[in-house]
Amino acid sequence: MGLAVFSSDALSSVAYATEAILSILILKSATSVGYQVPLTLGIVGLILIIAISYNQTIHAYPSGGGSYSVASENLGKWPGLIAGGALLVDYILTVSVSVAAGCAAIVSAVPSLHSYLVPMAVLCVAILAWANLRGVKESGAAFAIPTYGFVMSVLALLIVGMVQAMSGSLPAQANPQVIGSVGIDHHHGLYFLLARAFAAGCTALTGIEAVSNGVQAFRQPESKNASITLRWMVILLSVMFLGIGLLANHLPTLKLLPAADKEYRTLLAQIAAQIFGDKTVMFYVLQYATAAILVLAANTAFADFPRLASLLARDGYLPRPMARQGDRLVFHNGILVLAGLGGLLIVIFKGELDLLLPLYAVGVFTAFTLSQSGMVVHWLRHREKNWKYALCVNATGAFLSFVVLCIIAVTKFAEGAWIILIAVPLIVFGFHQINRRYGAISRQLAIQPGEKVDDHPHLSILLVPRVHRGILQGLEYARQLKGEVQAVHVIVNDKTVPQVRRDWDRYAPDVPLVVLSSPYRSLIEPVIDYVDELRRENRDSIITVIVAEAVATKPWHKLLQENVAMQIKTALSLRPNIIVSSVRYFLE
Amino acid sequence: MGLAVFSSDALSSVAYATEAILSILILKSATSVGYQVPLTLGIVGLILIIAISYNQTIHAYPSGGGSYSVASENLGKWPGLIAGGALLVDYILTVSVSVAAGCAAIVSAVPSLHSYLVPMAVLCVAILAWANLRGVKESGAAFAIPTYGFVMSVLALLIVGMVQAMSGSLPAQANPQVIGSVGIDHHHGLYFLLARAFAAGCTALTGIEAVSNGVQAFRQPESKNASITLRWMVILLSVMFLGIGLLANHLPTLKLLPAADKEYRTLLAQIAAQIFGDKTVMFYVLQYATAAILVLAANTAFADFPRLASLLARDGYLPRPMARQGDRLVFHNGILVLAGLGGLLIVIFKGELDLLLPLYAVGVFTAFTLSQSGMVVHWLRHREKNWKYALCVNATGAFLSFVVLCIIAVTKFAEGAWIILIAVPLIVFGFHQINRRYGAISRQLAIQPGEKVDDHPHLSILLVPRVHRGILQGLEYARQLKGEVQAVHVIVNDKTVPQVRRDWDRYAPDVPLVVLSSPYRSLIEPVIDYVDELRRENRDSIITVIVAEAVATKPWHKLLQENVAMQIKTALSLRPNIIVSSVRYFLE
Repeated sequence: MGLAVFSSDALSSVAYATEAILSILILKSATSVGYQVPLTLGIVGLILIIAISYNQTIHAYPSGGGSYSVASENLGKWPGLIAGGALLVDYILTVSVSVAAGCAAIVSAVPSLHSYLVPMAVLCVAILAWANLRGVKESGAAFAIPTYGFVMSVLALLIVGMVQAMSGSLPAQANPQVIGSVGIDHHHGLYFLLARAFAAGCTALTGIEAVSNGVQAFRQPESKNASITLRWMVILLSVMFLGIGLLANHLPTLKLLPAADKEYRTLLAQIAAQIFGDKTVMFYVLQYATAAILVLAANTAFADFPRLASLLARDGYLPRPMARQGDRLVFHNGILVLAGLGGLLIVIFKGELDLLLPLYAVGVFTAFTLSQSGMVVHWLRHREKNWKYALCVNATGAFLSFVVLCIIAVTKFAEGAWIILIAVPLIVFGFHQINRRYGAISRQLAIQPGEKVDDHPHLSILLVPRVHRGILQGLEYARQLKGEVQAVHVIVNDKTVPQVRRDWDRYAPDVPLVVLSSPYRSLIEPVIDYVDELRRENRDSIITVIVAEAVATKPWHKLLQENVAMQIKTALSLRPNIIVSSVRYFLE
Repeated sequence: MGLAVFSSDALSSVAYATEAILSILILKSATSVGYQVPLTLGIVGLILIIAISYNQTIHAYPSGGGSYSVASENLGKWPGLIAGGALLVDYILTVSVSVAAGCAAIVSAVPSLHSYLVPMAVLCVAILAWANLRGVKESGAAFAIPTYGFVMSVLALLIVGMVQAMSGSLPAQANPQVIGSVGIDHHHGLYFLLARAFAAGCTALTGIEAVSNGVQAFRQPESKNASITLRWMVILLSVMFLGIGLLANHLPTLKLLPAADKEYRTLLAQIAAQIFGDKTVMFYVLQYATAAILVLAANTAFADFPRLASLLARDGYLPRPMARQGDRLVFHNGILVLAGLGGLLIVIFKGELDLLLPLYAVGVFTAFTLSQSGMVVHWLRHREKNWKYALCVNATGAFLSFVVLCIIAVTKFAEGAWIILIAVPLIVFGFHQINRRYGAISRQLAIQPGEKVDDHPHLSILLVPRVHRGILQGLEYARQLKGEVQAVHVIVNDKTVPQVRRDWDRYAPDVPLVVLSSPYRSLIEPVIDYVDELRRENRDSIITVIVAEAVATKPWHKLLQENVAMQIKTALSLRPNIIVSSVRYFLE
C-alpha cells in the first residue's frame, strides 16, 4: 500500500521518459537512435545510485527528510531556500507534465479527442483542484488501483513483448526505424546530442524522493518499511524503464510526432499497439491505466505543495497564515495557486510534453543535489556507525546529481530551462524579502525591558438606532465592560427621536443618551466625528463602539440588514485604541 | 437661479415633444400632420392647468410636496406607494430619455458620430454616475449656463423664424410637408391617432412638478419664490413648445426617420438648419445647448432618485439603510442602481426615443393624478381660506391628469406602456413585502412588558499566537472586560510552544494559558471547538473572543497579514452570545 501512495509520481515517469530520449536522438539522425539503450542503462544506473543515497536519508530522518528540511538543517538558510523554491516550482510542473502526459495517453487511445487535448488537460487540473478543495477522502484503493493497474499492464506488455521477440513473431531488426517529423538538427555534435538525450531521460528520476519525504506515514518500524518500499519502487521503475527502452529498440517503425500533429500517439501507445495489437482490450487497459497513474501523480503535488509551503511559512519565508494548512481559507489559496499556475503552463506550452519536460528536471536535480550534499554534512557532523561509508554514498549521489544538473542546465537551457533558472532565484529573493519583513515586525513588536501591560481608562459607546430587544442585549454587553457607558443615537428620522428618548429613559435611565444630528442623513459620519471628539477629550482612553446587529437567516432578508459594525470598523481602521464590537441578535 | 436648478427637466422636454407628436401623426397620412398645431395648443392648455394646480401644492406644502408625500399623507398607504413606485420608474426613464435625446442632438450636429449613438449614451450615463459617486459640487453656474443657453438659443430660433416668416423669406406653405419613413398605419381611426399623438406630446409635461418638490431649497419667503419660479418656467415652456410647434408647421420638408437611420436628425435640428442655416454657428450653439440641458435633466434624476428612495426607506418600504443618504456606501448603491437600469434601457431600446417615450409619460401622469387627488383631500380636511376655489382647481387638475393617464395607458399600451403597467405594481408589491418583513422584525424585537436588561456572566478568551506588544494590548483590553479571562494558544508550530509558555508566565502570570493542539495545523477550528466547549460548560455566559491584529500600511505588507478575527467571526456567526473583538496594533 505504501508503494501505491508514494510511487505514482516516480513510476508514471516511464510513460514519457523513453519518448523524451528518442525524440532528442532523432534530431541528429535515424542512426543515432541506437544510443537509446546505452543511455537508458546509464539512467537506470543513476536511478540505483540516487535511490541508495536516499535510502540513507530515510534512516537518518525517520520523521521525514524533505530536501528543504535536510538542506536548510545541514547547509544553512540559502541552500535550504533554493531547494524549497526549486521544489515549489517542481510541484507546479508535476501537475502540468503529469496531466499533459495523461491526456496524451487518452488521446493516443481515442484519436478523435485529439483537438481537445489542451481543454481536456485544463479541465483535468480544474477537477483535481475542485476535488482537493472539497477534501478527498484518500482511500487506499484510490491509490492502489491506478498504480498497480499501470505496473501490471506495463509488465504484461514487457512479458508479451519478450515472448514475441523470442518466438520470432517480432521482426528482428538490426536498425529499428524511428521516424521523427521534428526536423534534423545538425548544429551540435554527437556528444552534445547524447548529453541532451541523457538529460531528457533523467525525467525518469522525478518523484524518487517521495518515499524519504513521507517516512512518518509508514507503519512501525517506519524507516524499515519505507526502505522496503523504496527498494520495490526502484526495482519496478528500473525494470519498466529498461523494458520499454529495449522494446522501443526492437520494434519496427515508430513515429515521433509533436503533440499538435493529428496522428500523434505516445511512444508507449505505439509499442502497445504493435505488441498487444491496436485497439485490443489490453491496449486500452494500458492507455487508461497510464492516464490514471499520471493523474494520481499530479494529485500528489496537490498534497505536497501546501505541505512544503506550510514548512516555509512556519520558518517565516512565506506568509505565516500558510503555515496553517488545516484552515480552509489558507489551504484553498494554496490549491488555487497550484492549479492556476499548473493550468497556465499547460495552456502556454499547448500541452506539448516536448516543451514542458525541459523545464521539469532542473528543479528536481537541484533539490537532489542540495539534499544529498546536506546528507554529507549530516554525516560529518553526526559520525554515527558506518558514517564513512554513508558519507561516500551520499557524496557520490550529490556529485552525480550535480553533474546531471549541470548537463540539464546547459543542454536544456535554450529549450526552457532558463525559465527555471530565472524563476527559482526570484522565488528565493521573495522568500528573503518576506523573511526580512517578518524580522522587522518582530523587532517592532518586541517587548522592551521593563514594559508592562498598560492600564488605560476605558469608555464604551452603544449605538441606539431605536430601543428594542437587540439593543438591550447590546446594553447588557456594554455593562460587561469597565468604565463609563454612553448610548448614542444618530438622528436619521426626526420624527422618531422623542420615542427613542422616552424608551431609553424607561429601560436604561442610568446610561446617558447622546443624540447626534446628521445634516446629510448619514449614520457613519456623525459616529466617527463623535468618537474623534471623545478621543480628544479622553486622550488615553480605549474606546469600545458597540453595535447591535441583526443576523438574518434567509438570503433575501439579508438584503434588508447591513453590516454597520463593519462600516464603522473600516472608517475607524486607522485610529488606534478603538475596538468595534458587534453584538448579534437573531431574527426568525 | 431657482429656475436653472429646477427647470432643466421640464424645459428640456421641448427638445423632443413636438417630434413625438409629428411622428405619430405621420403614421396616418401626410395631411393629418395639420392637427399638430391644435394638439400643441391643447397640451399648452394642459400645462397651464397642471401648473396652476401645482402652484397650490407649493403654498400648502412649503416644506416640499412630492407626489409620494402628498399622496400617502392624504390618500393613505397604497396610493402613496403607487406614486412612489411610479416616480422611481420615472427617474430611471428620465435618465434614459434625456441622455438618449441629448446624444441625438449631438448626432444631429455631427452626423459622423451616428453609429456611436448607443455607446455614447451609455458612456454619458457612466460619466454622470461617476460624477455623482464622486460628489459633484453643484455650483449655480453649472446649472445656469446650460439652462439659459438652451432657452436663449430656442428663443433666438423662434424670433429669427418669426422674422423670416413675416418678411416672407420662408416659403409660406398651406400644407407643410413632413416626410416619415415609418410607414403609414391605417389600422386605427383618426380619433385614436389624435389621442396617440396627444399622449405623445404630453411628455412635454415631465418635470413640471420639480419646483413643488423642492420648495425648501428656495430663499425666504420660500413659497412665494417657488411660485414665481414655477410661473416663469411655465411661461418659457409654453412659449418654446408652441413656437417650435408653429415653426414645424410652417417649414417645408421635414424628415422624420428612426434614430437607426443614417440620415437621422432631430426635428429641432432640422428646424434650426432651415432657419439659422445648416452648419452655422447658431445651429451648433443650439445643438450643444440642447445636449447640455438634457444631460443636466438626466443629472437631476441622480439627485431625486436617492432622495425619494430615502423617504420610502424611512417609512420602511425600502431597505432601511437607504434612508441614510449621507452614508457613502448606501448612496453609492442608489446611484449604481439608477445608472445601471437607465443604461440598460438605453441598450435594450437602442437609444430610440420613439421606443423610450411611450414608457415615460405613464409614471409621470400617475404621480400627477395621485398628487392632485391628494390635494383635493387636503382641502377637504383643512378648509383654509378659499378652500373651495383651491379644491376646484386641484380637482380639475386631478381629473385632467387622470384622463390623460387613461389616454396614454390605452393608446401607448402596445408601444411599451404595458411594461410600466406591470413594473409599477410589482415594485409596489416589493414595497409591501419589505414593509411586512420590517413589521415582523419589529414584533420579534418588541420588548415584552416586564422585560429587563439581563445580566449573564461574562468570560473572555484572548488568542495568543506568541507573546508580543500587540498581545499585551489585547491583554489590557481583556482586563477591561468583567469576568474571567483566559489566554488561548493554538499549536501551529510545536517548537515555539515552550517559548510561548515562558513568555506568558513572565508577563501575565495571573491569566491562565490554555494550549490547544491542532492535529491538522488549523488555527480556526481548535478555537471554535474550545469556544463550543466553554459554551457547554458555561451555558448562560457571554463569551468575548479577543484577537490582536496587525494593521499594515503598505499594500504588499497586507498580503503577509490576515484577518483572523473576521474568519473566527464568520465561523461563529450562527452561535449566540459570542462577541469577537479585534484589538489592532500598528506596524510601520
